[in-house]
Amino acid sequence: MSDLSTGVFAPVITPFHPDLSPDTERFTALCRKLIDEGCDGLVPFGTTSEANSLSLDERIDLLEAMVGGGVTASRLIVGTGLCAIPETVRLTSHAVGLGCAAVLMLPPYYYKGMSDEGLFAAYAEVIERVADERLRIYLYHIPKVSGVALSAALIGRLRDAYPDTVIGIKDSSGDWDNTRMLLEDFPGLRVFPGNELIMLEALRLGAVGCITATANVNAAGLAALYAERTDGLQEAASAVRRAVQSQAMVPALKQIVARRQGDDGWLTLRPPFVGLDEGQTNALFAALDEAGF
Amino acid sequence: MSDLSTGVFAPVITPFHPDLSPDTERFTALCRKLIDEGCDGLVPFGTTSEANSLSLDERIDLLEAMVGGGVTASRLIVGTGLCAIPETVRLTSHAVGLGCAAVLMLPPYYYKGMSDEGLFAAYAEVIERVADERLRIYLYHIPKVSGVALSAALIGRLRDAYPDTVIGIKDSSGDWDNTRMLLEDFPGLRVFPGNELIMLEALRLGAVGCITATANVNAAGLAALYAERTDGLQEAASAVRRAVQSQAMVPALKQIVARRQGDDGWLTLRPPFVGLDEGQTNALFAALDEAGF
Repeated sequence: MSDLSTGVFAPVITPFHPDLSPDTERFTALCRKLIDEGCDGLVPFGTTSEANSLSLDERIDLLEAMVGGGVTASRLIVGTGLCAIPETVRLTSHAVGLGCAAVLMLPPYYYKGMSDEGLFAAYAEVIERVADERLRIYLYHIPKVSGVALSAALIGRLRDAYPDTVIGIKDSSGDWDNTRMLLEDFPGLRVFPGNELIMLEALRLGAVGCITATANVNAAGLAALYAERTDGLQEAASAVRRAVQSQAMVPALKQIVARRQGDDGWLTLRPPFVGLDEGQTNALFAALDEAGF
Repeated sequence: MSDLSTGVFAPVITPFHPDLSPDTERFTALCRKLIDEGCDGLVPFGTTSEANSLSLDERIDLLEAMVGGGVTASRLIVGTGLCAIPETVRLTSHAVGLGCAAVLMLPPYYYKGMSDEGLFAAYAEVIERVADERLRIYLYHIPKVSGVALSAALIGRLRDAYPDTVIGIKDSSGDWDNTRMLLEDFPGLRVFPGNELIMLEALRLGAVGCITATANVNAAGLAALYAERTDGLQEAASAVRRAVQSQAMVPALKQIVARRQGDDGWLTLRPPFVGLDEGQTNALFAALDEAGF
């Protein structure tokens, strides 16, 4: 694994066949297309990917299909964090073995109110078991979904113990104060905000890029923002973001991709997600029109 | 599967070897002992079991060891609810195939704020895929841990669609108003409160028993309360409960079992859980002494 990931990364959405099995063909095609459109890399199996609705075996098959289908492994930061250590180890070792850039690792997220000591032990156990010096981890802080926050004390302890392995964090807190704290208080930590609304501000403080759901549909706009760093491009990207998140994000992204590709095969979601209804769909596209997208 | 489960059920704790692998021998021995001490049945792979820290394969192996080791399958309500439908289906089909009484099924618990429609679709998809008329499901409502509540509307919809399959619920809300609502508004629903503090009240309104963490250490007291239903036995059981939950519940239960069996092999927890420190341990046993336990 290398630790050179910078720029715009898409937590790529996962298409399903009508029987809810993963659609590797559509998946691989979208991955290639997102790179072509300007994404610097991809994050298969992020929250937006419905990753937690996929089985372990499905993730492994999809990652192999993706790499076998022409997506460069060194452009991938692979979501591998599960609740059970042996499963996180298995997915992580698999990603390392394929030559992926890094992994994005949730803490164990079922049990709530666990101590920093317990969360440290969970990460440490995974690192010791994977036992591969190529391993590079981005911690995944998304407390509103996972229910498990990563404190500054925990991050510091992990950085001290594993400085060459725990190289960064995706901050999906949606809390600018937290992102700023990470950028200011942890020199050398590679910070990806999980939201482009504060991309320019974060880049100015040293963020290495942005991992954002909307990169699934606005890769070019985000790539331009990352490259040119102008207020105008920030405003344009933010307007698209606000329009997309006016509806439930995951089904909204699938609606946009389906319409753009003229392919309703993108509309299937795996429960507990459900699709947008007609009114929500119309509202989504009206908001996107208004944002000039 | 039968739907005759009544009485006191222990969400049995899971012992680990020093290398954190599940200890099937200690596990099976405790299961047999709990039945001997008065438990009507067991719930392997509940929240208290550290189930969500176990891999799919580990659960399957443990359940087979348990049944192979002399624990009657028809006394088991097996925790099988995971985030990914194919995995919930696999565990559920396995439990049905072994002749277990029923399963205890969490909703998919990673994604938060999902609609009743989405949660219904997730349960329905599992039921349709398992496709076995022997299947009996207890819904698992434990919103403070899972982060995903099961609303009355969702329960009603599942009961209407699958009256012979969705037979009951474990209510670990810790909210008596919710337990009472379930007992009063859903005739025929088999309700197990997840806490004995309100056992007598719940039994008077028709609860079929209690699935409670403390049955790991107070099986006899709880069995007596279930059988005799006196205020004195309720007070005694509640005092034990309050003493145990004065510390973190899972490590506290392991401490009590370790001391009782003179076997420190019980003290190992899998991260993110950590053991009680000396002060917490002393406080736990002081509280138990005070409760006359």
